[in-house]
Amino acid sequence: MKPGKVTLVSAGPGDLDLLTFRAAKAIAAADVLLIDDLVNSEIVSLAPRARAIRVGKRGGCRSTPQAFITRLMRRYAQQGRHVVRVKGGEALLFGRAGEEMSELRRAGVEVEVINGISSGFAAAAGLGVSLTHRDHCPGVIFVTAHLRDGTSPDWPALARTGMTLAIYMGASRLADIAAALSGVLPVQTPAAIVEWAGTTRERRVVATLDDIARLAGAAGIVSPAVILVGGAIGEASCDADVLQDAHELSRRA
Amino acid sequence: MKPGKVTLVSAGPGDLDLLTFRAAKAIAAADVLLIDDLVNSEIVSLAPRARAIRVGKRGGCRSTPQAFITRLMRRYAQQGRHVVRVKGGEALLFGRAGEEMSELRRAGVEVEVINGISSGFAAAAGLGVSLTHRDHCPGVIFVTAHLRDGTSPDWPALARTGMTLAIYMGASRLADIAAALSGVLPVQTPAAIVEWAGTTRERRVVATLDDIARLAGAAGIVSPAVILVGGAIGEASCDADVLQDAHELSRRA
Repeated sequence: MKPGKVTLVSAGPGDLDLLTFRAAKAIAAADVLLIDDLVNSEIVSLAPRARAIRVGKRGGCRSTPQAFITRLMRRYAQQGRHVVRVKGGEALLFGRAGEEMSELRRAGVEVEVINGISSGFAAAAGLGVSLTHRDHCPGVIFVTAHLRDGTSPDWPALARTGMTLAIYMGASRLADIAAALSGVLPVQTPAAIVEWAGTTRERRVVATLDDIARLAGAAGIVSPAVILVGGAIGEASCDADVLQDAHELSRRA
Repeated sequence: MKPGKVTLVSAGPGDLDLLTFRAAKAIAAADVLLIDDLVNSEIVSLAPRARAIRVGKRGGCRSTPQAFITRLMRRYAQQGRHVVRVKGGEALLFGRAGEEMSELRRAGVEVEVINGISSGFAAAAGLGVSLTHRDHCPGVIFVTAHLRDGTSPDWPALARTGMTLAIYMGASRLADIAAALSGVLPVQTPAAIVEWAGTTRERRVVATLDDIARLAGAAGIVSPAVILVGGAIGEASCDADVLQDAHELSRRA
């Protein structure tokens, strides 16, 4: 029997247009497709001959446990199948690819990764800003607001680096995050939150640290959303429009 | 006259397979293609009707000055052309897109951005590691080693965040960077350097902070290369192979 394998494919933010050619080819060649929760379900149209299985793992209820997903991949691969695990965004940024790869390798299963567009980059593209505008910073930090042990990252320490911050999984803690960052950064530091970045459902609020939580709350912005903070974000071309949108949403709310 | 516009297209690491569909469509629709130095020259095959202009801007000699490139984009756009500026990697991570967008907007030129794969992600995919393995860190810092004023980032402060570091434009300063990081991180911290990540020319050295500079030097690793540092990088599947490669290269050197 030909040995199977697992390909972790980064599906990007959702719009199929933001898939790479390499990702689309891998999906088309799949025997089994395991599709994450936040992935556009139209992706199955690219894999006509594959068995498609939805394996949601979104924070909260009705999710497929990680151990079960890994076992499923391993079992199909050991049956000689080409398993394609489709993950939202970029597989190598958050989202447990590291653990999945370790376990599969330990079981002797070949695993490869195909890159994609992470929502932080899609959010910046929508805003029309570089994450690292040279006038503002020498880099960017991608960080999850949701640490394994239930605590938060050391926001003041991150703020002191002077980098742009791209904060994932922080929508529900936005007020706390903004307050913690304001201990170090000026309250007028530009901040944005982008819901469903890079999809047709994208909504953004562009503001500053002292009013982002209020405006995002008024606009009803919820997960999945990425938070961007830093001087570079203030270069947003759409400030005026977006702020107007935010105020309008806040009136409607 | 129909107004022109500028699209900044992120071409990814080089392999055309790592372009997104959206990027390929924009390139195919271009009237004028401005192509950066590190971009695969086969990309012109995707734009049969475009006038293609190479605008190298790589550190050092024979480069096209930034101001000239921006003026060129503006002029073509103001003549009603669709200008596609093709940048290596992800346009919104380093590479001056922020400045280009600001100037174009000031001149009243519409500008949009299409995301791509940055070399740090391609390097991690080649190594088979997540940049944010939960056992090791809550995030990743993308930083340039080459600050505008000629100084270096505050390496100890970045090391203290506990994040994975993805360091761009640092190949020629690798020994200094590793030494500075070793002031905070254990010298056995995993470190890798990947030259031409995500291309057929990719070469990697996987080591630890205390020997990465020596091994990379012996292997003749030079720019363009991305440096990855942190516990998550130690999960590399190919440690043994790659180290062997490095030792072999070092014997040949």
